[in-house]
Amino acid sequence: MSIEYRTEYDSLGPINVPSDRYYGAQTARAIENFPISGITIKSLPFVIQALAQVKIAAAQANCEEGFLATEKRDAIVTACQEVLAGKHDDEFVVDVFQGGAGTSTNMNMNEVLANRASELFGGVRGEGRLIHPNDDVNRSQSTNDAYATAVRLSIIPASRQLRDALLVLSNALNAKAAEFAHISKLGRTQLQDAVPMTLGQEFGAFATTILEDCDRLKETERLFLEVNLGGTAIGTGIAATPFYRTRVLEHLSHNTGLPVVGSKDLLEASWDMGAFMLHMGLLKRTAAKLSKIANDFRLLSSGPRGGIGEIVLPALQPGSSLMPGKVNPVAAEALNQVCFYVYGMDTTVGMAAQAGQLQLNAMEPVIVFSIHNAMDLLRKAVLTFTKTCVEGVQANAARCEDNLTSSTAFATELVTTMGYEAAAKVVKERLAS
Amino acid sequence: MSIEYRTEYDSLGPINVPSDRYYGAQTARAIENFPISGITIKSLPFVIQALAQVKIAAAQANCEEGFLATEKRDAIVTACQEVLAGKHDDEFVVDVFQGGAGTSTNMNMNEVLANRASELFGGVRGEGRLIHPNDDVNRSQSTNDAYATAVRLSIIPASRQLRDALLVLSNALNAKAAEFAHISKLGRTQLQDAVPMTLGQEFGAFATTILEDCDRLKETERLFLEVNLGGTAIGTGIAATPFYRTRVLEHLSHNTGLPVVGSKDLLEASWDMGAFMLHMGLLKRTAAKLSKIANDFRLLSSGPRGGIGEIVLPALQPGSSLMPGKVNPVAAEALNQVCFYVYGMDTTVGMAAQAGQLQLNAMEPVIVFSIHNAMDLLRKAVLTFTKTCVEGVQANAARCEDNLTSSTAFATELVTTMGYEAAAKVVKERLAS
Amino acid sequence: MSIEYRTEYDSLGPINVPSDRYYGAQTARAIENFPISGITIKSLPFVIQALAQVKIAAAQANCEEGFLATEKRDAIVTACQEVLAGKHDDEFVVDVFQGGAGTSTNMNMNEVLANRASELFGGVRGEGRLIHPNDDVNRSQSTNDAYATAVRLSIIPASRQLRDALLVLSNALNAKAAEFAHISKLGRTQLQDAVPMTLGQEFGAFATTILEDCDRLKETERLFLEVNLGGTAIGTGIAATPFYRTRVLEHLSHNTGLPVVGSKDLLEASWDMGAFMLHMGLLKRTAAKLSKIANDFRLLSSGPRGGIGEIVLPALQPGSSLMPGKVNPVAAEALNQVCFYVYGMDTTVGMAAQAGQLQLNAMEPVIVFSIHNAMDLLRKAVLTFTKTCVEGVQANAARCEDNLTSSTAFATELVTTMGYEAAAKVVKERLAS
Amino acid sequence: MSIEYRTEYDSLGPINVPSDRYYGAQTARAIENFPISGITIKSLPFVIQALAQVKIAAAQANCEEGFLATEKRDAIVTACQEVLAGKHDDEFVVDVFQGGAGTSTNMNMNEVLANRASELFGGVRGEGRLIHPNDDVNRSQSTNDAYATAVRLSIIPASRQLRDALLVLSNALNAKAAEFAHISKLGRTQLQDAVPMTLGQEFGAFATTILEDCDRLKETERLFLEVNLGGTAIGTGIAATPFYRTRVLEHLSHNTGLPVVGSKDLLEASWDMGAFMLHMGLLKRTAAKLSKIANDFRLLSSGPRGGIGEIVLPALQPGSSLMPGKVNPVAAEALNQVCFYVYGMDTTVGMAAQAGQLQLNAMEPVIVFSIHNAMDLLRKAVLTFTKTCVEGVQANAARCEDNLTSSTAFATELVTTMGYEAAAKVVKERLAS
Repeated sequence: MSIEYRTEYDSLGPINVPSDRYYGAQTARAIENFPISGITIKSLPFVIQALAQVKIAAAQANCEEGFLATEKRDAIVTACQEVLAGKHDDEFVVDVFQGGAGTSTNMNMNEVLANRASELFGGVRGEGRLIHPNDDVNRSQSTNDAYATAVRLSIIPASRQLRDALLVLSNALNAKAAEFAHISKLGRTQLQDAVPMTLGQEFGAFATTILEDCDRLKETERLFLEVNLGGTAIGTGIAATPFYRTRVLEHLSHNTGLPVVGSKDLLEASWDMGAFMLHMGLLKRTAAKLSKIANDFRLLSSGPRGGIGEIVLPALQPGSSLMPGKVNPVAAEALNQVCFYVYGMDTTVGMAAQAGQLQLNAMEPVIVFSIHNAMDLLRKAVLTFTKTCVEGVQANAARCEDNLTSSTAFATELVTTMGYEAAAKVVKERLAS
Repeated sequence: MSIEYRTEYDSLGPINVPSDRYYGAQTARAIENFPISGITIKSLPFVIQALAQVKIAAAQANCEEGFLATEKRDAIVTACQEVLAGKHDDEFVVDVFQGGAGTSTNMNMNEVLANRASELFGGVRGEGRLIHPNDDVNRSQSTNDAYATAVRLSIIPASRQLRDALLVLSNALNAKAAEFAHISKLGRTQLQDAVPMTLGQEFGAFATTILEDCDRLKETERLFLEVNLGGTAIGTGIAATPFYRTRVLEHLSHNTGLPVVGSKDLLEASWDMGAFMLHMGLLKRTAAKLSKIANDFRLLSSGPRGGIGEIVLPALQPGSSLMPGKVNPVAAEALNQVCFYVYGMDTTVGMAAQAGQLQLNAMEPVIVFSIHNAMDLLRKAVLTFTKTCVEGVQANAARCEDNLTSSTAFATELVTTMGYEAAAKVVKERLAS
Repeated sequence: MSIEYRTEYDSLGPINVPSDRYYGAQTARAIENFPISGITIKSLPFVIQALAQVKIAAAQANCEEGFLATEKRDAIVTACQEVLAGKHDDEFVVDVFQGGAGTSTNMNMNEVLANRASELFGGVRGEGRLIHPNDDVNRSQSTNDAYATAVRLSIIPASRQLRDALLVLSNALNAKAAEFAHISKLGRTQLQDAVPMTLGQEFGAFATTILEDCDRLKETERLFLEVNLGGTAIGTGIAATPFYRTRVLEHLSHNTGLPVVGSKDLLEASWDMGAFMLHMGLLKRTAAKLSKIANDFRLLSSGPRGGIGEIVLPALQPGSSLMPGKVNPVAAEALNQVCFYVYGMDTTVGMAAQAGQLQLNAMEPVIVFSIHNAMDLLRKAVLTFTKTCVEGVQANAARCEDNLTSSTAFATELVTTMGYEAAAKVVKERLAS
Repeated sequence: MSIEYRTEYDSLGPINVPSDRYYGAQTARAIENFPISGITIKSLPFVIQALAQVKIAAAQANCEEGFLATEKRDAIVTACQEVLAGKHDDEFVVDVFQGGAGTSTNMNMNEVLANRASELFGGVRGEGRLIHPNDDVNRSQSTNDAYATAVRLSIIPASRQLRDALLVLSNALNAKAAEFAHISKLGRTQLQDAVPMTLGQEFGAFATTILEDCDRLKETERLFLEVNLGGTAIGTGIAATPFYRTRVLEHLSHNTGLPVVGSKDLLEASWDMGAFMLHMGLLKRTAAKLSKIANDFRLLSSGPRGGIGEIVLPALQPGSSLMPGKVNPVAAEALNQVCFYVYGMDTTVGMAAQAGQLQLNAMEPVIVFSIHNAMDLLRKAVLTFTKTCVEGVQANAARCEDNLTSSTAFATELVTTMGYEAAAKVVKERLAS
């Protein structure tokens, strides 16, 4: 089956584009230039959607400014709505590892919208189209503000999804805390027998720590509501008017329902990656907490006979290809590994964020990919862990009691009456017996 | 000169302590156990001070509770005030790399206070002292709440010092922004000639980005005001009364002037390192911004002839042992290196924070050391960079103009009138000429 | 279209498996248990192939030992050869993020081979099959040695592919070094004008540094030739005979052509991740070098007018959606971002490698995935960068000469005759003029 | 007590230097320029010594070349020997965080040697001295080769010291392996009961894994024997003769007893940080192994009643300020924390190594500091852990037996006779009973 092509032209000359595609010349070049991961920007749906929202707002403001005829605006807006509805997902074909600071992503969108809007308008795709990717769709914009704004806004729905997943986990842990509220057990510090507590308290603390990160995720949203749209190339707003700058933000806020605000210093906003770093740092913190919980699940369920054995995890799969009857804490182990991966993404973001130079950070695409990758993996891992492990965890109350009563956890109560030194002697004698 | 020793006893038996020291048996053991970095907790003055504040508040609450005679309380408080005044700095001798989750730091303080308070009371140091390190000074506390509270509070003054330094830098950058407000220059994205801007805008953006981190530092303070004091060993409050728990926080708030609040989930608060991770992540973000600024200073001052050469850094020292007349951007390079070090500290904190197990994180000491180390180095590097480099930076206006006028930065203005494609042709011809 | 299922049983009970699949019960459970990244082990072809090689060698040794009938051995070997030929790629469906220390990967292979061999034998798939996944295919093995051996061997061909790509790059750089051998230019240290050199020397140094990593990659291969096959569960060789242990390694060496050797301490080899850490550290080093080269390409091509401008990169795509005629160093930027990602993978591997406990490291799957991911991305990015950027780079000889002659690079020659101080004065005067 | 000063001059003008100091103008400037960490290069004795060796070899080669009178050479060599003997340690006062790519360290050495050699010669310090820091001591050198060579050579003795410490640990672990050879115990994978082993095997594996790193440390030495001495500023050898280049390496090899070789590509060698990255990667691997061993010590000694409790660590200090009789695994915890710190240093080195630009990496000082810091901390932590913990660890044989016999570790033996599925049923019944 042969593919048919049309020829398009950009400032570098002619290039073939598959005839049935909405994308155009620059997207075709990007495909050739970045055959790297095979993961395309289609895998970042929140970015695609946010960028479509930016294009809608820009078309509206450009129209009001008199830069874009009403019919052109309507055609562009309709094309954007189709993108938002997922009708053109397969058109977003640029690799997530791309040079150009997002220009290929932006032009992929501009070309899809221009060709689709042209069609809606009764025109053709490619050469001779009635809507121009740069002069109409990208009017009053640069990648440096349109893409930058879109990727910031894209974090918000992804972050909310993650928060929802963490709430599911926190609630499941709290349900177990209630279920285990009356099971006394040994508290341990530094893996050494310490003082009494309940298994409910242990699970309640897990729930609390996750809930805190839900709060933090909510707080960091605000960092992504501050955008540099209207700043164009480097924040000076070249090729955009003050009227446009005001209107485009108003439209964007109204259309998305998000209280978007313009950066006060548009030059700084053009290169600063600070919001991403803080958000990624928070994701690493969440990963640290999840990893700690996974570790505790594995410790507490260790055994079943030769370990602590105070909780019993659901048996998900045979634990060994050789050792019969062995069941492993595989859900917790998978969660751990995702958390280690998230730590890796923080390294990547930290490297890329400080590699900006002068008026732009050209490494923004890998930052965006890494953060979305981290959020997506965390969310899925959290939901999987909750469903396959937390919801089915059971207490081994007998073991809890055995471990508690055989220990010297009672001794700290003695301190207030007999003093530290005398109590220490009692413990020493007890352990020697 | 021979050192004289007294013999002290702890639950492990006798040990020699230098006679003229206020510290005691457990500190002496810690010296033997941790001969690692040679850096002692004396190098963390904010930790020492915050721990002394915890001991004052505890003594006050214990006295009100009836656990401590008024005279004993007064002696302990006086000893604490001496510590706050820096009179016993040399007594804090435990290595910053220590096992025991801070117990050695806490006992170092307990012993110094017990012996000094005993002396103030007319008693001796060591065996026979009138104030007991555990039963009096550490009364109603565990390291797991007293140390944990102190190290959290210790972040606040250090963070404020760093913020002050960053404000000095931001102000210096702003002063330069004003000075350079009328110098037109070439804006660059991806190191390629882009569009016009002013040198003042460039420096203004540096000032803005640093100011943002001052705001963020202020916001994270609140995370460290939430403490687990009163939770004792694992957060269940064993060996402490509810009355004490209420009063000790009130005293701590009153004495320090900080609006300290108790953690709602004391079990979680006993092992969670989340506040440290977020704060360290913020320090890494500050380092990323500073590193980017240092990079830009080096780029903009590159040359002086064969580079960009738009700014001139103060000549601080001859730049080469061989090449005569060479002057290097040494202040910026030093700042870069400190920033890389801060990235390293974030790695350390991230590793340690997820290594907690069950009811405690035994790795808190390296977290505390790393964060204070990072803040201290950043502060000094920022002040040094400001004074030796930013304040004396000069514009090379002629070079700024040359670079701007020889470029094609004017072309973007053409887009709005002639369209992207026609403008691109103009640029192509200009560059070919 | 409805899917038909067969019911299979494992030690946890019944589970449905699509009728047309070769994989079985445990693979089906793993699909349910790890719906995390959507990236399956099919994406790790070298792992699949090496694991098939392990199964061949084991079948041969088990047969010689009398544990496996000749016909069963032959059927298993044939099934393995089909896997090696890529005929069953779609059967490898377990997520790369999996708990169980590789058990799911190993059982996925065991089940595919058992069912396929059963079919070859005239039997059925699933219940009633003539070859058992555990008792026949996995005979004398545990995941802990079969998987561990396979993943180590899988590094070798991937590493060789990467080395080949690096050689392509090094050769391309060397060709440019020859082409640019006679172009004099300014050498720079700390971005400051230093002393004369040639552009050929600059490119030659790039070629050298990459070639060194080819050598290092070759050297680290040996670390992966040492395997723990025969150690079974924890290295004690339980359920395997000494005769088998000797023979399986001989077969594996013979079949693969690799000089495989058995670990001397099989217990250590069962949990140690040291080889992976060193290899990943080397990949990070390669990334550092590539990132430095990419940075230099971007610096040297900065401008075209307002920067250094000594080299001209191929124009791959229009550089801006707004700024006409701008061309960006997109190939170098993409390479940088891949390098930052590789740094992230090193973090992940470093976290996972130290998370092993007692007789096993359960985090091996994320280590394997991260390293293969890093090698694959590096290889593609290197080939892309070579082809789209290095091969087409051109010198701007006029600019090279301008930068050199306008600088004070000549001054160092004066030092040997007139001394450092006098020469420094000459430079100072020259720069002031 | 007032300090007396002399006035010195460098190319930037006059500066005061304390009269009793051997260091000079540029060192005084560096003190002012880098008031950052307070840690001076005195803390890097191996760097000071290696740099003195470079200066000896250079003086010898310069003399043979006719650039340096015999008497001057002898005076310089004598001054160097005093430095090697530690007589001038307090003269090395530059901060380890320094810009200038090591120039301040090199000039600190040049000035100390010039002034001291002048004195030995009957001359004065400072202005009017008979030996010039640049023209005599630094003759035929640049910081870029002299410092670079010295810091590479400095790694070797530090690495050997670390290796010695690791051998001490490995031997101590082996001694325990022999002592525990006959203690049967439960082997665990994924913290779940697996199959039988001996405690001796467990300790033997620890010993093996450490011994492997001793081998790797020995292998990486060779990377640091390749040096760029003679390359001067950027590797072109400007201001040095071919005769000198040959002779200086011969002298350096002869004097140090190290088989030093010259880099084949001196330009590449001037900026490449590859050897440091590999070495640091190896140190991280060692840290990963040590951290794993520390974790296992803590796991195996957990309890003493409510955990695994199979080994008993020496009681080093009371474990709690509150809980009487508690003893914690403090030596292992301290080791863990040092390991996390080493991970941090790897991050720092990885950042700095990729930050080189064009003909030099200006970030070499922080690389050198971080690696020496990591080696020093590792060495001390390893020796401390060995002495305070490993040498005194005891087996709890009764607990080992209890854990083994109560488990289902016997079941794997059944597989070879009754098959996996039947054996799994046996285990299930046993655990339910």
